[in-house]
Amino acid sequence: MRVGVIGGGQLARMMVPAAIELGIEIAVLGESQDSSARIAVTAIGDHRDPEVVLAFARDVDVITFDHEHVPQPVLRALVDAGVAVRPGPEALLHAQDKLVLRERLQQLGVPQPEWARVADADELAAFLERVGGRAVVKTPRGGYDGHGVRVVSSAREADDWLADGPLLAEELVAFRRELAQLVARRPSGDVAVWPLVETVQGGGVCREVFAPAPRATARTERVSREIAHSLAQALGVTGVLAVELFETADDRVLVNELAMRPHNSGHWTIDGAVTSQFEQHLRAVLDLPLGSTDAIAPWSAMVNVLGGPADGDLDRPMPLLMADQPAAKVHLYGKAPRPGRKIGHVTATGADLDEAVFQARAAAAFFA
Amino acid sequence: MRVGVIGGGQLARMMVPAAIELGIEIAVLGESQDSSARIAVTAIGDHRDPEVVLAFARDVDVITFDHEHVPQPVLRALVDAGVAVRPGPEALLHAQDKLVLRERLQQLGVPQPEWARVADADELAAFLERVGGRAVVKTPRGGYDGHGVRVVSSAREADDWLADGPLLAEELVAFRRELAQLVARRPSGDVAVWPLVETVQGGGVCREVFAPAPRATARTERVSREIAHSLAQALGVTGVLAVELFETADDRVLVNELAMRPHNSGHWTIDGAVTSQFEQHLRAVLDLPLGSTDAIAPWSAMVNVLGGPADGDLDRPMPLLMADQPAAKVHLYGKAPRPGRKIGHVTATGADLDEAVFQARAAAAFFA
Repeated sequence: MRVGVIGGGQLARMMVPAAIELGIEIAVLGESQDSSARIAVTAIGDHRDPEVVLAFARDVDVITFDHEHVPQPVLRALVDAGVAVRPGPEALLHAQDKLVLRERLQQLGVPQPEWARVADADELAAFLERVGGRAVVKTPRGGYDGHGVRVVSSAREADDWLADGPLLAEELVAFRRELAQLVARRPSGDVAVWPLVETVQGGGVCREVFAPAPRATARTERVSREIAHSLAQALGVTGVLAVELFETADDRVLVNELAMRPHNSGHWTIDGAVTSQFEQHLRAVLDLPLGSTDAIAPWSAMVNVLGGPADGDLDRPMPLLMADQPAAKVHLYGKAPRPGRKIGHVTATGADLDEAVFQARAAAAFFA
Repeated sequence: MRVGVIGGGQLARMMVPAAIELGIEIAVLGESQDSSARIAVTAIGDHRDPEVVLAFARDVDVITFDHEHVPQPVLRALVDAGVAVRPGPEALLHAQDKLVLRERLQQLGVPQPEWARVADADELAAFLERVGGRAVVKTPRGGYDGHGVRVVSSAREADDWLADGPLLAEELVAFRRELAQLVARRPSGDVAVWPLVETVQGGGVCREVFAPAPRATARTERVSREIAHSLAQALGVTGVLAVELFETADDRVLVNELAMRPHNSGHWTIDGAVTSQFEQHLRAVLDLPLGSTDAIAPWSAMVNVLGGPADGDLDRPMPLLMADQPAAKVHLYGKAPRPGRKIGHVTATGADLDEAVFQARAAAAFFA
């Protein structure tokens, strides 16, 4: 069995240990020799170039992804060439285009924030009036980690983006906190569901994840599970699907965004679950039976390493970190430190959430 | 940080996921393009050739090993060239030469079976008389997994081996079971100790491991820990040290053999301990602080996959195995099936030993 991954970022990198353990060959189409997943990079090229991607796909049993940026025409060319593409183009479109997703969620009756497709300032003004004067506008495509997202309180504040096409406008949800529900689905239809988690964002970037989501009601857990399960089926997802959710003050959950690949909200599963999201993604895209999603400890806490040391030396903090936090699981992505960049994460597990959070934060802080 | 591993077998292979997660670069000197650790192989050559090994060592911060077969003159050449070799030649000699080990254990007063260095049939006859007419003879060097080991009851049965030099003769220990104590030591002296385990051998090959060793007395655990800890210090081991032990019917523990590298008796730590032996080995040889050796579940059971399917197809059993045992952790080594060959292992963890053993055995049986 040989899996080809398009994109050489940290998600591809973290698939490699899972592939090695399962005895699955893994090949990565990377951006450069210096890609995070470089140990498995077998080709370097542009994922927007059909010829590059088709040539890469020739020697693998299935193609999957480190990111959602492969254009639809390239995905279609793969399918037309008989390549198993998982997730497939129809499913992936919902992770590529936020307007397509919102329309589909509406059709499916899935709870989500108020939203509108706005093509000009007048439409945005009308939406602003409807939702109380402030809204989030998003470019339908290409946004990530806070890019392509802007809070506006007047209709002219999105003129620059509107020049490029219609935008998604959403109400500003007064959420209590953010949650994420991770599931995996294989082509034959089986779905595996991990525990619901709480995610803490800052500056549009995931900072911390607590698993399971503390103090979540049984109803919230059930609704979140049902939403993610039914979305995986309805959209025909193959592989991991992460559904980002708002938990509102009046105890509803609304779908914020989704990702059709391993996701930051699931990094805790490497150390905290029987089957990690990376192993599960490989199983799912190969249409192998899915593994147990049970947690291996009552609590897991994951803290991202953002930016890194000012001197760029990631080796320097390691001795002190490891001496101070011998139970912390450090994961570095082989990326050069740069302000705000996700360069790694730390997970701690245990019987006490506060202690796990403390350990993971203390370890991650050594990289500041 | 860049670690160079001499030898491309499954132990090198299983260091790779640990290196990827920690952000440590890993390079392997493999036997062939087809080595088990091929994803990290950066050079192919003979580990007995000083030029090959010195060239490989040029670009790494430390040299360590997949096996103990690098000759002493090659190890010395590395040290003379200023390379950090961990474990170093003096320590490694005790894992390379069983006579050297027995002599050293005697000096240190470590409990071990009755033994003698026998240079000819007369000396073997004298030893046989001393231990009751039957003994184990071992070639001092090059043995592994039952090779170079023979049970004899007359002095002429080792003539072929004696022609090549002196042998180690040992009493046949009437042991109740075999145990193994895994530790790791870093150059600065810190030693980390995992729980004592029970190992089940068959045909000279490890078949199963139960962690922790069921029904071990506190005294057995303490003595085993003390033996391994003091040996790591006395021999100046850097990296993982596995001490294979006999537990006798009268509740003593005797040192059988030792290995200065990750060891089959420690494979359970990948899924069953906070820090796996592979991560710990990397930390130790880089002189980084050692990680927690706590188990993450009350029980772990590891079952080796020996031989593999007669048709050589390792992909075929996977769907049924995974459907039947969703919590089993399957590890395959990227090696072609061959009768008796170690090609993988399966670990299961949980609150109940019998259930973990059942799961691991059931999963491994799919490869038969």
